[in-house]
Amino acid sequence: MAGKIGLNITQICLPRECTEDEIIEEVLKLNEDPRVHGVYLHLPPASLTSRVLNTLRPEKDVDGTVLVVGGEGPLGVALQCLMQRGGMVVLNSRRSSEGLQKQVCPHRCMRTHTHIHLHKVHLQNMSGVGPLTAALRMRNVVQSSSRWAQGQQYRPWTLRSLKLQPLSPVPSDIEISRAQTPKPVDQLAQEIGLLQEETEAYGRTKAKVRLSLLDRLREQPDGKYVLVAGITPTPLGEGKSTVVIGLVQALSAHLKLNSFACLRQPSQGPTFGVKGGAAGGGYAQVIPMEEFNLHLTGDIHAITAANNLVAAAIDARMLHEATQTDKVTVMSQFGAIVISQWRRLGISEIDPRALTPQEVSSFVRLDLDPAKVTWQRVVDTNDRFLRKITVGQASTEKGHVRETQFDIAVASEIMAILALADGLGDMKTRLGRMVVGSSRSGQPITAEDLGVSGALAVLMKDAIKPTLMQTLEGSPVFVHAGPFANIAHGNSSVLADKLALKLVGEDGFVVTEAGFGADIGMEKFFNIKCRASGLRPNVVVLVATVRALKMHGGGPNVSAGSPLPREYIDENLSLVTKGCSSNLRKQIQIAHLFGVPVVVALNVFKTDTQAEIDLVCQMAKESGAADAVPCHHWARGGRGSVDLAQAVKQASSQPSHFQFLYSQETPIVEKIRMIAQKVYGADDIELSPEAQAKIDYYNQQGYGKLPICMAKTHLSLSHLPEKKGTPTGFTLPIRDIRASIGAGFIYPLVGTMSTMPGLPTRPCFYDIDLDPVTEEITGLF
Amino acid sequence: MAGKIGLNITQICLPRECTEDEIIEEVLKLNEDPRVHGVYLHLPPASLTSRVLNTLRPEKDVDGTVLVVGGEGPLGVALQCLMQRGGMVVLNSRRSSEGLQKQVCPHRCMRTHTHIHLHKVHLQNMSGVGPLTAALRMRNVVQSSSRWAQGQQYRPWTLRSLKLQPLSPVPSDIEISRAQTPKPVDQLAQEIGLLQEETEAYGRTKAKVRLSLLDRLREQPDGKYVLVAGITPTPLGEGKSTVVIGLVQALSAHLKLNSFACLRQPSQGPTFGVKGGAAGGGYAQVIPMEEFNLHLTGDIHAITAANNLVAAAIDARMLHEATQTDKVTVMSQFGAIVISQWRRLGISEIDPRALTPQEVSSFVRLDLDPAKVTWQRVVDTNDRFLRKITVGQASTEKGHVRETQFDIAVASEIMAILALADGLGDMKTRLGRMVVGSSRSGQPITAEDLGVSGALAVLMKDAIKPTLMQTLEGSPVFVHAGPFANIAHGNSSVLADKLALKLVGEDGFVVTEAGFGADIGMEKFFNIKCRASGLRPNVVVLVATVRALKMHGGGPNVSAGSPLPREYIDENLSLVTKGCSSNLRKQIQIAHLFGVPVVVALNVFKTDTQAEIDLVCQMAKESGAADAVPCHHWARGGRGSVDLAQAVKQASSQPSHFQFLYSQETPIVEKIRMIAQKVYGADDIELSPEAQAKIDYYNQQGYGKLPICMAKTHLSLSHLPEKKGTPTGFTLPIRDIRASIGAGFIYPLVGTMSTMPGLPTRPCFYDIDLDPVTEEITGLF
Repeated sequence: MAGKIGLNITQICLPRECTEDEIIEEVLKLNEDPRVHGVYLHLPPASLTSRVLNTLRPEKDVDGTVLVVGGEGPLGVALQCLMQRGGMVVLNSRRSSEGLQKQVCPHRCMRTHTHIHLHKVHLQNMSGVGPLTAALRMRNVVQSSSRWAQGQQYRPWTLRSLKLQPLSPVPSDIEISRAQTPKPVDQLAQEIGLLQEETEAYGRTKAKVRLSLLDRLREQPDGKYVLVAGITPTPLGEGKSTVVIGLVQALSAHLKLNSFACLRQPSQGPTFGVKGGAAGGGYAQVIPMEEFNLHLTGDIHAITAANNLVAAAIDARMLHEATQTDKVTVMSQFGAIVISQWRRLGISEIDPRALTPQEVSSFVRLDLDPAKVTWQRVVDTNDRFLRKITVGQASTEKGHVRETQFDIAVASEIMAILALADGLGDMKTRLGRMVVGSSRSGQPITAEDLGVSGALAVLMKDAIKPTLMQTLEGSPVFVHAGPFANIAHGNSSVLADKLALKLVGEDGFVVTEAGFGADIGMEKFFNIKCRASGLRPNVVVLVATVRALKMHGGGPNVSAGSPLPREYIDENLSLVTKGCSSNLRKQIQIAHLFGVPVVVALNVFKTDTQAEIDLVCQMAKESGAADAVPCHHWARGGRGSVDLAQAVKQASSQPSHFQFLYSQETPIVEKIRMIAQKVYGADDIELSPEAQAKIDYYNQQGYGKLPICMAKTHLSLSHLPEKKGTPTGFTLPIRDIRASIGAGFIYPLVGTMSTMPGLPTRPCFYDIDLDPVTEEITGLF
Repeated sequence: MAGKIGLNITQICLPRECTEDEIIEEVLKLNEDPRVHGVYLHLPPASLTSRVLNTLRPEKDVDGTVLVVGGEGPLGVALQCLMQRGGMVVLNSRRSSEGLQKQVCPHRCMRTHTHIHLHKVHLQNMSGVGPLTAALRMRNVVQSSSRWAQGQQYRPWTLRSLKLQPLSPVPSDIEISRAQTPKPVDQLAQEIGLLQEETEAYGRTKAKVRLSLLDRLREQPDGKYVLVAGITPTPLGEGKSTVVIGLVQALSAHLKLNSFACLRQPSQGPTFGVKGGAAGGGYAQVIPMEEFNLHLTGDIHAITAANNLVAAAIDARMLHEATQTDKVTVMSQFGAIVISQWRRLGISEIDPRALTPQEVSSFVRLDLDPAKVTWQRVVDTNDRFLRKITVGQASTEKGHVRETQFDIAVASEIMAILALADGLGDMKTRLGRMVVGSSRSGQPITAEDLGVSGALAVLMKDAIKPTLMQTLEGSPVFVHAGPFANIAHGNSSVLADKLALKLVGEDGFVVTEAGFGADIGMEKFFNIKCRASGLRPNVVVLVATVRALKMHGGGPNVSAGSPLPREYIDENLSLVTKGCSSNLRKQIQIAHLFGVPVVVALNVFKTDTQAEIDLVCQMAKESGAADAVPCHHWARGGRGSVDLAQAVKQASSQPSHFQFLYSQETPIVEKIRMIAQKVYGADDIELSPEAQAKIDYYNQQGYGKLPICMAKTHLSLSHLPEKKGTPTGFTLPIRDIRASIGAGFIYPLVGTMSTMPGLPTRPCFYDIDLDPVTEEITGLF
């Protein structure tokens, strides 16, 4: 048992009202007690007098040295730290660390403090070590905890990689996922430096990570921040998610660098509808893929519940305002939320009876205009029959029918807020300021006005914590938020990226993905997400495929469900050349607009020839890419992405001169024009009268400084999906403009955006099944 | 370190294709190796020849003795068992038990068997014990595990109770909940005899329990099964849930008997709407109450997702069938699910081209009649505007509009199925046979026909596992399923009750609750739930309040939101007497119809006088109750329910002569009549023509043998809510009849049942808030 150090922690409870002298008497006893090797004074601030502090012998004081850790209680954290670093600490309590933590954590106890605690720290000798050695070790314990806590310097994780033995031909995604046994998530959490109290397991393979981590690691320098974007894709997609996962598998399992993948949570709609899962594919996957693709840890369900509570509140409020005429009743009812808001702000109550009828009315009535409600209900199902509906047709709703719609849950503004929020307080503020419609007099009405923002924060309190999972090779992955990439910004959460950047440390890598092509996803990543987070990217990985390049070079139409034309199967260097010199070159230039170096990742398919691969890499470099490498992660896992990992590592050491495309102060129209011209290559923009009117309204309401989130097709740099390559000579039409005030952006509509997919004639769910005996899922993809 | 036994388990891997001789050679080596104290032959069946088996020295064979455990791998389970029993087993592996389990579990390895394993079991001497002692201990290890596994005899849990110090006046529910720190759920799980691999934590305070437990404990005799029902309540409710929780707190924390509470999961609708939470109240609560009342472990969200996938599939299918005329396309699409069903059944494929156009049509078309779709969408929100809606109004749906509705999620048939299912296979079968409507030719169309049943099972695979939580005093609680009590049977799940009955063991108690008054909830508990589960109740606890008894005795109207009339605050023995001799007596008689002894629990309010309390108890006993006791759990926790616990223990030792009210073979009309006459006290029933037509249709479809689930008001024994006491001389009108074929019951409608509550003018959510710094929730109740 050599090498183990036993910390025996007990506590003395004194009554809260004991005097300074009584405390000092106890401390003196502890000073003299040879069995007590350390004392932590766990006292309310008033009792922590200098006399008391000076009484405790310095060599027994285990407080100040570790107090810098902050967060969850110094001694508990110190112990956790030690365990974390491989030191074995045997506690004399059989209780879990949570029990211990409660015992020693001042923050928790302070809340309901009924006693004064003196914690005696014994050092148990378990291996024949003499008292002096023991005392020295005790000191080491404290000092090393302190160093660890203060420094939090980079250290390589001791990550146990899961071995991959790729088969050929590559089996189905679910077969690959099932053949690999994930590490228990608590083991993974420990490997990457998470303390036990910072995680909340959800089953064996998923855990939510608490945001208190950000506090603990606030002095830790961030790792390198890598964005994976893509060229304009074919409708089949070009594999950005697999590149993210393959790259992290390569960085962590092969180059042995701390690294983290940050991914979006997929909607269940496509999982059961037409697209299939989004956990990557082949030998670059998040496992277990079925957990990733199903309920995960319930975040989207929480969003659905929160979103629909707002909707129910809106319609019920309009009905009640329309049907209740007794002013006093109305006052006592609707007024309650106003009064409670005032109370929170410290405003003393007014006497409702002293108000004039007009004042009462303006006090208690929102006067929402049913025709101007912009809030929609959501479900996380591809349910096309809900695209346009009429509600309120039961007799109990007294004829207050109106037309409305359901969106898919991930299109909810609450999803965009989850992705952009910086913490619980920020999320709550954003939820409160969501605009759900406007009053008959044209005033915006918010969730706060409806009195529902507190309840929304309660519903979302767990969803705000990112979910930890792992890749096929055992590298860590955060799955968190998945907003739409057209009406919203299409990026995973700010919080997941921030947590990951702290966890990987200075020399580590966080790889995150932007939805759609770089002209949309990357542009929004920079102008919206980075603006909200304050984070600055080091490298952009631009994913290309020979298939998409041939399409941009003039190849025939590619569409889901039809066989690929010959041009895409046979070597065709001419099409590849034209694709590289148009769309690829343009997308590299877009990244350079923001001052970030680009590495092109060519996602290799088995029909690609060596000449085609070489040509793409050569032309990418000629177009300004820092490097360009072929990737084989789908067929070979992380080993197939080692070259990419090396190139990313190399590029990340280059200076990045990140800059936004526009200042927030720029007028709305100018911001839109800058994106259209500089990013899309349009000659100009053309505003519809509706769009112009909305801009005027937004300016008047003070929304003019919000960033812009373009709702444009991802299938072309222009607004016309059929225009491939680098379209020029077009004017971008802005059909209408909307705003997500809570999320914090304005979204111009370029064309019609569907926010509710449908089920195809042959939906995915036909093939999905569960064996009730083995509990194995089949046919998921 | 004395008392610890070290088991060192390693394994030898041999190639799968090794010969019998090679295996025997290895076994011989192990026979001779003095460091190896035991060998577990982990071989594929073909290699497990008698020669191999006979080669292994019997004293080294650790297989047969523990193999009876079954389930999750014998050696792993044996070790877990030992740890469970307080024996300390130190494993030489630093990996978690999951790692160990994988190492030794044949069931798991067999699936992807690539090697032959021989497990060497060493006994490590950690305390100076000689080899002989060690060997004896090893034998003891195996023998005691074996005894434990075979016997599973009753043993008292070593449950750590949480101390309560009730305050007066009683604080708000959330304040009481927050003042108590729950035990970590893994500690609770261990205390009640769950193995580590049988639980899946969801955060710190909730865990799902795997159904494999039923396999492991199948030889364990069940505990006593106690149902808590109530007299006909006032609209304010009479506190059945608090009685359940208080009783279990008393049984476990005060009488030190193994006991479990089984509760329903509440809908979020009322939580944010009008009613508030359902985690009990006062000092009889499930904690943390906010976890109980919010997302819990996502079961209701899973139901919502599954329910709405069926709805989307129905409308999309009708649209596709109506708009796609090309038979070949239709064949390849819709036909896929039929073909895949055939394949599962082992039927070889047919050549579609060999079919006539008519055969093709009947093969691929469900021909659902839009006017006869009975399946509704659901949300878990009180959204009254969805009570009647028109869907399909977008141009993409080509005019296929229809009227439909949303119900609250807990009204979904899938919830009723979750509550009645006996296992994953049973649930899947029930999900598949749910009838969603009928074809134009009158044939019922099921979820299986839609090809969605496999996907539903996948969506529900975690929801089927009950969630473990705890009471304020640390006693275990299962929260699982919460079907409506009118259109469904209103009881928590069969699986939770079954798991709990095994866990408490022969002398333990499981207390479960039936929704509404005994005439509805208890009747359905017996005739529907017990019929489905095969379980037999030992005692009925009938909850009464002086308030409700006064109402039945002729007191004035009681309604939510209005102050209670004086009669309910001042002593009034005359009203109490009349209430006892009418409703209380009748409800006791109803329980006796089923042959089960009754204990009356008088839930005492602070306005009740001693004379009133004594009167109720006396009259209850005169009416045939085995006992009648006042309960003070709300103000005093388990200590306030000790008398009830003693009475229940006493009554449970009486013989119970349980019998159903009717046989399944009885015709539908007769079953309804028996319930109406014997339970409600009606003179007769009166069927509407619609009801009669439905009965004929159900008989024709073979549904005639299903039990009956009456959808009747809970506010009276009759169908008229205003008739209190024991109404007589009435005829029960059956307005219509519906069926939940998947859940397995027919539900006659007696009056109009709302399946979508609304938000009141002053909803609960006004008061609900979250402090973003402390993360504390306020105003939940």
